[in-house]
Amino acid sequence: MNIAFLGLGRMGRGMAANLLHAGHTVTVWNRTRARAEEMKPLGARIADSPAEAARAGVVITMLADDHAVESAVFDDGGILSALPAGGLHVSMSTISVALSSRLADAHRAARQSYVAAPVLGRPEAAAAAKLLIIAAGPQEAIARVQPIFGAMAQKTIVISSTPPAANVIKLCANFFIASIIEALGESFALARKSGIEASKLLEVFTGTPYTAPLVATYGSLIAEGKFTPPGFLLPLGLKDVRLALAAADAAGAPLPIANLLHDRFLAAIARGHGEKDWSAIALLAAEDAGL
Amino acid sequence: MNIAFLGLGRMGRGMAANLLHAGHTVTVWNRTRARAEEMKPLGARIADSPAEAARAGVVITMLADDHAVESAVFDDGGILSALPAGGLHVSMSTISVALSSRLADAHRAARQSYVAAPVLGRPEAAAAAKLLIIAAGPQEAIARVQPIFGAMAQKTIVISSTPPAANVIKLCANFFIASIIEALGESFALARKSGIEASKLLEVFTGTPYTAPLVATYGSLIAEGKFTPPGFLLPLGLKDVRLALAAADAAGAPLPIANLLHDRFLAAIARGHGEKDWSAIALLAAEDAGL
Amino acid sequence: MNIAFLGLGRMGRGMAANLLHAGHTVTVWNRTRARAEEMKPLGARIADSPAEAARAGVVITMLADDHAVESAVFDDGGILSALPAGGLHVSMSTISVALSSRLADAHRAARQSYVAAPVLGRPEAAAAAKLLIIAAGPQEAIARVQPIFGAMAQKTIVISSTPPAANVIKLCANFFIASIIEALGESFALARKSGIEASKLLEVFTGTPYTAPLVATYGSLIAEGKFTPPGFLLPLGLKDVRLALAAADAAGAPLPIANLLHDRFLAAIARGHGEKDWSAIALLAAEDAGL
Amino acid sequence: MNIAFLGLGRMGRGMAANLLHAGHTVTVWNRTRARAEEMKPLGARIADSPAEAARAGVVITMLADDHAVESAVFDDGGILSALPAGGLHVSMSTISVALSSRLADAHRAARQSYVAAPVLGRPEAAAAAKLLIIAAGPQEAIARVQPIFGAMAQKTIVISSTPPAANVIKLCANFFIASIIEALGESFALARKSGIEASKLLEVFTGTPYTAPLVATYGSLIAEGKFTPPGFLLPLGLKDVRLALAAADAAGAPLPIANLLHDRFLAAIARGHGEKDWSAIALLAAEDAGL
Repeated sequence: MNIAFLGLGRMGRGMAANLLHAGHTVTVWNRTRARAEEMKPLGARIADSPAEAARAGVVITMLADDHAVESAVFDDGGILSALPAGGLHVSMSTISVALSSRLADAHRAARQSYVAAPVLGRPEAAAAAKLLIIAAGPQEAIARVQPIFGAMAQKTIVISSTPPAANVIKLCANFFIASIIEALGESFALARKSGIEASKLLEVFTGTPYTAPLVATYGSLIAEGKFTPPGFLLPLGLKDVRLALAAADAAGAPLPIANLLHDRFLAAIARGHGEKDWSAIALLAAEDAGL
Repeated sequence: MNIAFLGLGRMGRGMAANLLHAGHTVTVWNRTRARAEEMKPLGARIADSPAEAARAGVVITMLADDHAVESAVFDDGGILSALPAGGLHVSMSTISVALSSRLADAHRAARQSYVAAPVLGRPEAAAAAKLLIIAAGPQEAIARVQPIFGAMAQKTIVISSTPPAANVIKLCANFFIASIIEALGESFALARKSGIEASKLLEVFTGTPYTAPLVATYGSLIAEGKFTPPGFLLPLGLKDVRLALAAADAAGAPLPIANLLHDRFLAAIARGHGEKDWSAIALLAAEDAGL
Repeated sequence: MNIAFLGLGRMGRGMAANLLHAGHTVTVWNRTRARAEEMKPLGARIADSPAEAARAGVVITMLADDHAVESAVFDDGGILSALPAGGLHVSMSTISVALSSRLADAHRAARQSYVAAPVLGRPEAAAAAKLLIIAAGPQEAIARVQPIFGAMAQKTIVISSTPPAANVIKLCANFFIASIIEALGESFALARKSGIEASKLLEVFTGTPYTAPLVATYGSLIAEGKFTPPGFLLPLGLKDVRLALAAADAAGAPLPIANLLHDRFLAAIARGHGEKDWSAIALLAAEDAGL
Repeated sequence: MNIAFLGLGRMGRGMAANLLHAGHTVTVWNRTRARAEEMKPLGARIADSPAEAARAGVVITMLADDHAVESAVFDDGGILSALPAGGLHVSMSTISVALSSRLADAHRAARQSYVAAPVLGRPEAAAAAKLLIIAAGPQEAIARVQPIFGAMAQKTIVISSTPPAANVIKLCANFFIASIIEALGESFALARKSGIEASKLLEVFTGTPYTAPLVATYGSLIAEGKFTPPGFLLPLGLKDVRLALAAADAAGAPLPIANLLHDRFLAAIARGHGEKDWSAIALLAAEDAGL
């Protein structure tokens, strides 16, 4: 298939590479062109602008945030104007529910298709084509991109025919992980302040029927206080919690743990932990216990 | 081994039965004697009082709460006075860190041994000898009861030589589960209020590398709104959160999520959900979203 | 002075009337023209659009929210294009810090002046020229509008030469009042659930050196459960808490009580209290206590 | 009247002195006898034990905490056994609702009267006989001690015939003050982080119809960062919040702001502010904002 891929960050590089490996014709674009050049040896074509890339007919965006997506889509010479009628935009990065809704409306008005397909998984999973894709959009559009999803993910879960539903689910998933980090952080603070070795609590949390890979991963980071190098940078956690809170506010659903997380992330940055992994919010529970 | 087993509730029955199956000589006592009589066909002897049982030399308590343990141990004719010097008390129910500490002191003063060994697992796990035991106490005492633990648990994790440490860890573990329930409840409220089928969010939470048996269990209960019959009664969840908060207050470690849980449990009872499973706190997130 | 007054809601009507009483020449505009017509007998001129009004050279906006202000200022034929160079925009309604900042930039670029001057006080205070004005902006611009402020307020406090500072202070003031309402609501819930007459707690809260008009006002409403007719509609409280949270998020200052208030307002609307006074969030503390 | 006064701390000294000034015969007792000796020049008699003092027939306790009151009342040779039938115990310090309830029961069983009469006011108010007394107990007992209250307070508010009701109200009053401190702390953090001088926010909070002596007092302390010497020591604030939370837990009334306060006090101590005034919890909002 002829595919444009916009956004070659830590996630996007692996995803685009997997599309190339699967035999697709991929035109890449990245704000910093050097990153695009690195894909050339894998067979990628390079576009000078989102508009040029969009002529491929199917455009995947894996850009940093709402602002980057808005700019790539709505600016003069952006995707919206360049994508042919019948073209398809697959938005895969974590963006706001509100923007996803606006994209759905704009593409519909332009007789283009739009699928929201955010992903779960770290850069390693992206590189290994082991992502989980959460997709929502018109049935025929999703059917059309199944081969694309198959090249990047171990599984695709189709949520609904309404694209923003996928973004809500993605935000729920990230909120849930952050909640687990906070609950771990508080647990370790209590155990350590009670004079117990962190490794013992970790043994319980990982050695029981209750465990999960997620708990093991973040439990270890917290037990060992190993917050650098960051797997997922703390301010990105703040960004995602903000998006979850915005979705909750718009829907009218209070999320008290998300409020707590928001304050944790803000305070973590204020108290000098902004360059660490997002699990470093656990340091705040420890500091507040005098550890 | 000659063992007294006090407390034949939903957990205790399975645990005592497994001790009998393993060939130990077990004397049981229960406040309501009928429950003790039911153990007779399995070979149990029946004691008329904690004191009579305590003559066995090794006493396991699996009683409802602090009050029941205090009464069985400290009352006239209780364990403390009846247990021979060199005797051993293994406290396996979920009690406060403060009481565990007081028991350690009292038994030491009476030249008896004391091991705190609370368990993780539901009644079915107790019946199937699949519990996880979290043990703390003097090394030789723990060594002495290993055959007992082996008959009841799939695994024993030894935390420390200081008994209350095991109680802290047990409270952390229950707090962690309750935190996950709350995070699930909020997530489902947001997804449903956004017009998404609960089953779709459940599919994501259980179909990913992030999943855990715990998430699947409670996620299903919440997605299906199936809070009766209760697996773990909501007021018992309140009891455990109170114990975690008491431990945190004494240690000087703030637990913001535990505060939220405490209020959820109180409000759930006030709003008529006191007869349901503790995962019914998820109803509050839903009600506050107008669902 | 020649003044345009935009926005004749419950607050604006009294404010505009006081300008007329003070002898100013006032041109009014309101989205629903009927409200403007009502000002005619007092001597007001009526404009057909914000632009027409803006020719007065000094424009006061007292519009409902950010959206209304943005539209009146930035739309084609809005204030920004119609106000002569050297003209002055005084923004008096409660708007976001971000919009106030954007207005400051836009007016500066157009060689116009901009003063942020939100007010404290209810409609009765507006009618009685007893408002408190919190003003920020260039010194000479504030000096220029002192006669205007004098006609509407009992006092003006000048915060800074940076307009958005006044908006921050206004949001702090409203957040503080809402915090007091919540603290009162929780106190009354505890007292009543403990079997104490609400009037007794009110007597203590109003009969001591600790009292304040604010505490007396809201304490009475809560003690008597008198939430209709609304003095300040509950969803407007939600709006203001949202603005405070947005300002706090942008500044990087966590506001945990504001988070709680946000959830209270959302839940109050979800649970059917959206038509009541904002002090009706006290009902949630009562409901959560089973009252 | 013949009165025993137990507890000559910062509050008790002024209160006992005022009883002497009013012409009552006062027998004092204090754990540290030196403090009692200091009252001799004012005409006080000195007792060697609570029991000796209790023979006066009317005993006022103004002791540090639950533990001190329990010891003075229930220990061998305590008030309960020494007070004659028909005697009266007036408990004026801030104690738990649970202990007040237990005292009511014990005195009733001993055919003695019991009045709970906690006070609002600082040591200066105690010295100046300007306290506010919140009283609850049997009507005839309260009538009997009116002359005593008149000598110490500017006003007595009678809550109910059930003594613990007065303790609930006292805890509500302290909780309310602490809530205002927290709301002020958050407001000042937001304002300062937004680049605004604290004095400007203080001017608004004290210059408006919304102000209160309480807001002025604590607002100034926070605006100036003047937390030493302490007017009310931070750990005493923690003690009172614990009592409020215990009362709320027993009554089944969630108090979310009290939870937040509890964590603030714990963290303030952990972060080194334990020797400061309780308003120093405002430092945490500031620190979390990076100030």
